[in-house]
Amino acid sequence: MSHADPFLARLERARSASKRLATVTTTQKNAALESIASELEDSVDEIVAANAIDLERGRANAIGEGLLDRLRLDTDRIRGLAAAVRDVIALPDPVGEVVRGSTLANGIQISQVRVPFGVVGAIYEARPNVTVDIAALSLKSGNGAVLRGGSAAEHSNRVLVELIQRAVSRAGLDGDAVQTIDEFGREGASRLMRARGFIDVLIPRGSAGLISTVVQESTVPVIETGSGVVHVYVDASAEEGMAVSVVKNAKTHRPSVCNAAETLLVHRDAAERLLPRLARELMGAGVELSGDEASRSAVPGVGVADEETWATEHHALAMGVRVVGSLDEALAHIERYSTRHTEAIVTQDYASAERFLAEVDSAVVMVNASTRFTDGGEFGFGAEVGISTQKLHARGPMGLPELTSTKWLVRGTGQIR
Amino acid sequence: MSHADPFLARLERARSASKRLATVTTTQKNAALESIASELEDSVDEIVAANAIDLERGRANAIGEGLLDRLRLDTDRIRGLAAAVRDVIALPDPVGEVVRGSTLANGIQISQVRVPFGVVGAIYEARPNVTVDIAALSLKSGNGAVLRGGSAAEHSNRVLVELIQRAVSRAGLDGDAVQTIDEFGREGASRLMRARGFIDVLIPRGSAGLISTVVQESTVPVIETGSGVVHVYVDASAEEGMAVSVVKNAKTHRPSVCNAAETLLVHRDAAERLLPRLARELMGAGVELSGDEASRSAVPGVGVADEETWATEHHALAMGVRVVGSLDEALAHIERYSTRHTEAIVTQDYASAERFLAEVDSAVVMVNASTRFTDGGEFGFGAEVGISTQKLHARGPMGLPELTSTKWLVRGTGQIR
Repeated sequence: MSHADPFLARLERARSASKRLATVTTTQKNAALESIASELEDSVDEIVAANAIDLERGRANAIGEGLLDRLRLDTDRIRGLAAAVRDVIALPDPVGEVVRGSTLANGIQISQVRVPFGVVGAIYEARPNVTVDIAALSLKSGNGAVLRGGSAAEHSNRVLVELIQRAVSRAGLDGDAVQTIDEFGREGASRLMRARGFIDVLIPRGSAGLISTVVQESTVPVIETGSGVVHVYVDASAEEGMAVSVVKNAKTHRPSVCNAAETLLVHRDAAERLLPRLARELMGAGVELSGDEASRSAVPGVGVADEETWATEHHALAMGVRVVGSLDEALAHIERYSTRHTEAIVTQDYASAERFLAEVDSAVVMVNASTRFTDGGEFGFGAEVGISTQKLHARGPMGLPELTSTKWLVRGTGQIR
Repeated sequence: MSHADPFLARLERARSASKRLATVTTTQKNAALESIASELEDSVDEIVAANAIDLERGRANAIGEGLLDRLRLDTDRIRGLAAAVRDVIALPDPVGEVVRGSTLANGIQISQVRVPFGVVGAIYEARPNVTVDIAALSLKSGNGAVLRGGSAAEHSNRVLVELIQRAVSRAGLDGDAVQTIDEFGREGASRLMRARGFIDVLIPRGSAGLISTVVQESTVPVIETGSGVVHVYVDASAEEGMAVSVVKNAKTHRPSVCNAAETLLVHRDAAERLLPRLARELMGAGVELSGDEASRSAVPGVGVADEETWATEHHALAMGVRVVGSLDEALAHIERYSTRHTEAIVTQDYASAERFLAEVDSAVVMVNASTRFTDGGEFGFGAEVGISTQKLHARGPMGLPELTSTKWLVRGTGQIR
């Protein structure tokens, strides 16, 4: 089938290439990935030149320093991309893994094996590193990829995708497996969300607004990756040193990422004992605190928290603080404001720990550990595809196996019912 | 939170009850299921009376004998429903199962455990047995259930849901966990599809049209269960007796269900040897055949097949027949027309068998076995939640574990990054 519509023709090329990719060996896929890594290292000048156009346009549009930084590719960062691709080579290939199986009473053998989804769609914003990342993870898991990286990174992404296609073809696989649809603009993104039959799963990466749009508009199954309004609850029994170290690490180690803590809940009986030092250490690390009345009266210099405070993922050195009367009150606050990414309790009490683990309905629930551990690398998955905050298919840090489906193979000798 | 909107209030009751249900023991859930089974047996008259109203209205609306039969509940069928609920009691409880886990280098212990989704929504048509079925499977897996069974079965469903609520409450759990929204009509079904935050997963059961509407309109994650345009391919090397027995069983054992075969593909080199007998046996069992030119010239009495023939799930003793020149041609036909439910090859050739298993992209791919084996019961899952034809979360026959999500529990001793 070849489509007159250039958008569908593009998707069809990815789909058709993905069918061949589904049955190639791990050795062949790893060779293609090594080819991409080398090609990245050999094309630094070309990539930097294309990136300069995007940066120039970004500056003209005054997109802000944070965005400009995420957009920027220099020699070091491009070498980093090549290294990341080689990390994917080192990961086990999930395709063909036998998940479970049995021999039925009538002698039929059934086995459930991992197979690629087909084509993974990705919608993200102004991060050209994601282009290489998703392409490498998709190829390793036997999937085609259709990428919509946004107009701000259009030139960088075009060069990167062309480079990937070239490298994959040179390794003897079908370079059409990776496609960009940036040139089709917003209309292309909308059509991608409705491209059932062409795209098997859609992964949005970026702001809460982007993810919410994709979830609302998409008819293709979506894996929602997540914004994190992450809570740390310091229980009445918490040990002081541990509470300080966990809360400080959770908030300040890397405030821009989704597993950073946003809200500190402190049990009333621990507030007097712990809150002044917790607040001092946080403020000493540059964290701006906004609190309820009880925490403001316990600690001078804490701002006024409002509804917005509790519901916001700050991506910055800012944190809400609230004193709660009980574990129940902490659970109720979390139930109301959490985005169901990660929550942690700091406690010395066994019953509180187990209740928190059982009752908090989040992808990752922790006792006495920094929320920063919600991470595919930390969990031992090698690379991370993202952190799913939905309940279907994958929840929490996703590794390569989460980029596959399964099918059942049934081997008989003529059995009938 | 209590909603002034009676529809949302209904959903909120299910959601709130589901939170408590998530942490009760298997013993408590089994007691609630036994209470439902007894209540069904004790309420035969009440159920039959309500069902009579639906049947009467169905006859007045001339809905057809097939639909009337699916709608009908008599003493035997109600006893069958109670027996089905007791079958669910016998199934292992998936909640709390540790799927995987490890201890990280820093001593943190992580484990991924099964947890309920929360609330399962179900949209189906005129089958009151599904009401009991989904309610029992949802309760056993710790989920609430919101049911939209369609106006044709409205009275039957209302009595069944009231009975379930009563029985669950009597067993000491919260009867609000199971709700019907039939009284809110089509508008209610539309709102259910958009009830993110109230409904965690939506399962449509019924016609291809119903399923497609839900998939297109729903913003709640959907598990697509499936219509089956199921193929049996008789390879050049197929053994005659086996081909006849598998094809006949696949088509005629129970033609109304989704794992029944709809299309017979025969390799050209086997057509002369096998097709006359295959066709004779099928027609002898009352199957109406529609074929391409090659099969019509090989067998008298075969009707003319068109595009419609290949794309239709007949749910009846009707079958398309096509002679193909090669395995490739068979694979291309399947690729084009399959709904990716189940396909089978009958062959004596190892290479053909393995290629078919590797290249057919369906939930279940079989060698030398009747397609009727695509079934949760046959696969050893006990009860069956449905057969998923999508690639996300679950594919093929679904058991109770497919009605759960997971979460990660992380136990530390103060670790930070």
